[in-house]
Amino acid sequence: MFSSLKRFLIGRPLKSTELGEQKLNKTKALAILSSDALSSVAYGPEQILIVLVTAGAAAFWYSLPIAAGVLFLLAALILSYRQIIFAYPHGGGAYIVSKQNLGENPGLIAGGSLLVDYILTVAVSVSAGTDAITSAFPALHPYTVLIACILVLLITILNLRGLTESASILAYPVYLFVLALFIMIGVGFFHISGGEVSPSRHASIGTPVAGISLFLLLRAFASGSSALTGVEAISNAIPNFKSPAPNNAAKTLAAMGLLLALLFTGIVYLSYYYGIVPNEKETVVSQIAEGIFGRNVFYYIIQGTTAMILVLAANTGYSAFPLLAYNLAKDRYIARMFTIRGDRLGYSNGIIFLAITSMLLILAFRGRTEKLIPLYAVGVFIPFTLSQSGMLVKWLKEKPEGWKIKLTINFIGALISFLVMMTFFITKFTQVWPVLIFLPLLVLLFHRIKKHYTAVGKQLDLTTCEPALPIKGNVIIVPVAGFTHVVENSLNYAKSLSADQIIAVYVAFEREEEKKFEEKWRKWQPDIRLVTLNSYYRSIIHPLTKFIDTVQKKANAADYSVTVLIPQFIPKKSWHNILHNQSSLLIRAFLLYRRNVIVTTVPYRLKE
Amino acid sequence: MFSSLKRFLIGRPLKSTELGEQKLNKTKALAILSSDALSSVAYGPEQILIVLVTAGAAAFWYSLPIAAGVLFLLAALILSYRQIIFAYPHGGGAYIVSKQNLGENPGLIAGGSLLVDYILTVAVSVSAGTDAITSAFPALHPYTVLIACILVLLITILNLRGLTESASILAYPVYLFVLALFIMIGVGFFHISGGEVSPSRHASIGTPVAGISLFLLLRAFASGSSALTGVEAISNAIPNFKSPAPNNAAKTLAAMGLLLALLFTGIVYLSYYYGIVPNEKETVVSQIAEGIFGRNVFYYIIQGTTAMILVLAANTGYSAFPLLAYNLAKDRYIARMFTIRGDRLGYSNGIIFLAITSMLLILAFRGRTEKLIPLYAVGVFIPFTLSQSGMLVKWLKEKPEGWKIKLTINFIGALISFLVMMTFFITKFTQVWPVLIFLPLLVLLFHRIKKHYTAVGKQLDLTTCEPALPIKGNVIIVPVAGFTHVVENSLNYAKSLSADQIIAVYVAFEREEEKKFEEKWRKWQPDIRLVTLNSYYRSIIHPLTKFIDTVQKKANAADYSVTVLIPQFIPKKSWHNILHNQSSLLIRAFLLYRRNVIVTTVPYRLKE
Repeated sequence: MFSSLKRFLIGRPLKSTELGEQKLNKTKALAILSSDALSSVAYGPEQILIVLVTAGAAAFWYSLPIAAGVLFLLAALILSYRQIIFAYPHGGGAYIVSKQNLGENPGLIAGGSLLVDYILTVAVSVSAGTDAITSAFPALHPYTVLIACILVLLITILNLRGLTESASILAYPVYLFVLALFIMIGVGFFHISGGEVSPSRHASIGTPVAGISLFLLLRAFASGSSALTGVEAISNAIPNFKSPAPNNAAKTLAAMGLLLALLFTGIVYLSYYYGIVPNEKETVVSQIAEGIFGRNVFYYIIQGTTAMILVLAANTGYSAFPLLAYNLAKDRYIARMFTIRGDRLGYSNGIIFLAITSMLLILAFRGRTEKLIPLYAVGVFIPFTLSQSGMLVKWLKEKPEGWKIKLTINFIGALISFLVMMTFFITKFTQVWPVLIFLPLLVLLFHRIKKHYTAVGKQLDLTTCEPALPIKGNVIIVPVAGFTHVVENSLNYAKSLSADQIIAVYVAFEREEEKKFEEKWRKWQPDIRLVTLNSYYRSIIHPLTKFIDTVQKKANAADYSVTVLIPQFIPKKSWHNILHNQSSLLIRAFLLYRRNVIVTTVPYRLKE
Repeated sequence: MFSSLKRFLIGRPLKSTELGEQKLNKTKALAILSSDALSSVAYGPEQILIVLVTAGAAAFWYSLPIAAGVLFLLAALILSYRQIIFAYPHGGGAYIVSKQNLGENPGLIAGGSLLVDYILTVAVSVSAGTDAITSAFPALHPYTVLIACILVLLITILNLRGLTESASILAYPVYLFVLALFIMIGVGFFHISGGEVSPSRHASIGTPVAGISLFLLLRAFASGSSALTGVEAISNAIPNFKSPAPNNAAKTLAAMGLLLALLFTGIVYLSYYYGIVPNEKETVVSQIAEGIFGRNVFYYIIQGTTAMILVLAANTGYSAFPLLAYNLAKDRYIARMFTIRGDRLGYSNGIIFLAITSMLLILAFRGRTEKLIPLYAVGVFIPFTLSQSGMLVKWLKEKPEGWKIKLTINFIGALISFLVMMTFFITKFTQVWPVLIFLPLLVLLFHRIKKHYTAVGKQLDLTTCEPALPIKGNVIIVPVAGFTHVVENSLNYAKSLSADQIIAVYVAFEREEEKKFEEKWRKWQPDIRLVTLNSYYRSIIHPLTKFIDTVQKKANAADYSVTVLIPQFIPKKSWHNILHNQSSLLIRAFLLYRRNVIVTTVPYRLKE
């Protein structure tokens, strides 16, 4: 039943040889890998205005030069990441670049902060999308957390179905959003050029503003830069592209940069020209759409597609997280299970892990995840800075043809990323300080896991250790509970093995019972030695373990192995199990983990 | 850590021989077994008045003859149960009496309804006690469910610590409640006899009342009879008494009857004489206490001890449920685990089951369990009726000395119990109908469980079945994952057993890998046959199971056993387990439950 539900939800398993068909073309890749970046235009410009409004409405004109700064940073990042794509055509992004050029710890810092960041992306963007939905339908408000979790589950199922399938479905809303915004911006500019809109109510560019400070401008710039989160996703996900993967990825990156630049510029300019003032009740995009269209059907299309893109921004996390986790797991910094491909060839453990952790965040914050946004932004600019610096080192070391231009590009990228990161730390320290505690702990955990895997590898390796001692003989212990076919079956099996000694053990709760059992046993199995143990405290495990310990001491001295043979009857229907004491399971688990004995379960299947 | 917490909460384990010290003397037994019955005086009289008030204040005088009726029923029940105690000195109450005299199904109906009833007792009485607490401290109101659950947990821990210990602690509040009520009643009568209270504002006895009907009077009587729930508890719990158990139990029962009669009469009379009118905001007992003492310290003592006794009424369920469950489990109608004595010699599985189910009820009803009261009352009068009828049959069959008097007593008991039960069904059908669906389902479940145990018993019994076939040879299959000490260890063990064939199996995900593995194997273990399987879908279990099936077909035909030897390495620290794929556990569980093979786990313990 479970497996047919699984089939229905995620489809039939795919053969390993079908991996090629799971690669993405540029159109689909652009849709699922850029949804995070593109969705940022829905709130990035607003973030700038929210900071500027504290200096008064006269400061709004600064949004234009700040936007220019953001565009410059965008251009630098796109060019830098384009270089990373060609230099590291197998993907891995900031983690690989930092590790190879700056060393292990910078790599782990970059990888760790991106891992956490993708989880935050999912939680934050799904919560934002849910907010948009519950704002439109206030009756749904009490179900915010439930709706958010259902959305996460839906995206998870889509991703478990595999890349191509999720991309085919998710491409529509992404392109619809882009199209809707372009129409809005186009109509807006048409209105402005036609003189239908009175010149901006905002102060014109260059108007001096009292009380403006460099600190404030930096904060506004840093806030606006939060629109650039998600730019690195493509460089992580190169293995998902059709070949030639690096070329396709580079072209997709360029297209994403262009779209992002156009939409960002358009919205910043329109909000300036239409004299938009940010307020808590209505988003900037909503105000612009209302100014241009009024509250007609186009307005609602803009709002609807915005809500969708906010939810789908989560999908970028789903594309990049499993690949990054795969890279970290391959290097043994996190659990090996992240390297396993699921039924549909995706790294399904990564997908499921991402779903669970982001839902836990949503539950913990009861859907109010806005507080996590600064953490999330700073978590992106740390790997940005590290990867660009890594490229700097690479060019300085390798000095390939044209390295000076490449160096300059990455230098500018590194510098601005570093500045933005520092701005976040300085201007929002009260919100981002947990990063300084959490990241080192995460890196420490990575090291401990690596250390464990290395230790295990050494202990298992046939070449580095002395060979296991040969076994010279066997002692078999059979705990028995009565005179039944289950016991008979186990004893027959024990006899069929060439054991040097077979000992049946019975744990009695009362003295009288003990004697009766011994008498009956002598008649039934005269050739098998029976040991009866007394349990004053009605526990089977404790006296049994004590006995096994004594046997084992002797056996080990003679290089004999000790096997505990556990008779277990298996009922026909699984609900019957609750009617039987699961002593055999308990004994097995206890012995296997606490004592060094071999444990054999001899099943006796009931027919009724 | 878990075990030292357990020690702290419930104390050191007791030896089976210490059972005698866990028996109760009469004083303690009265306290813990009568708390349910005694607590009913806090709401029984009120229930009568609530019904009568619908016919107008003039009808209140009827509470006196109705109370006389309830007292008569109480007397009949006490005498009947006294006879049951001596006839069935090993306890079991309604279940045993009905089963032995009326047959299996009546016994199961009585037993089933009592089992459910004890769960309801705990949920309802703890909720009522919590209500009393939150009424006194309204700030605690939002935490109703939490407080109720904590109270259940406290009573559970006390009961897990053992009978004598819980009785020693719980006796104080019970006797304090009885004492407080006696003082209140005494002072009340003193005031009345001194003429300090004006004659009752209620109509005098015999005043004709317009609109009074037999139906209404029956309902009032039935509601008042709900004060008699809990009377049967002593007859269930005879094994908990010090010897001579039946004599002590009978004396305790008589004492309980007397206390109950005195308190019930006193409260009904005072509420009539003080002209109490039931209202939603203040209980009848609270009104009487206020009328007698005013709001002084005595008033608060009455209120406080009432709240305590309401909570402690739950304890009667804790004393009777595990014993009843033991009796049903001994007869194999419910899971065998209820027959096992815990560390402190109580039937701890019954105690824990009762705690969990009653907390689930409290959670499901969010602490508003009043709706369950009618269910609970009808659930008591079904076993009352059945046990008295059972005694009738017994006397008619056995005709011992003085059987006519005994017959008469049980006949009256049976008749009134039956009438009360029918009154409940007729007057409160909309609330009690679930009993008619739930009880038959429960009895059906009992039968299915019994059938399963009988079938299992037959299949395991050495005398009724042909003996298990002897094993003529062994095939050992070792799934291998690489060239490691873990595998080497398992192979050494396999070689040490006298297997007719050892087959190592490797599941490869890629063709190339397969060939490499085979070559390396030939050099490493030339004398052990290797079979490589190809998995297109990256599953280890499916190809492995298919292979085992083929081997097994051949082996079974030749009476050979098939053993799957699973190499498993056990990390030093248990958290390390999450870093390793638990394939060996999965394979084991899958094979043991789906295929008829013997499964051996060969552990390899890591030192680091």
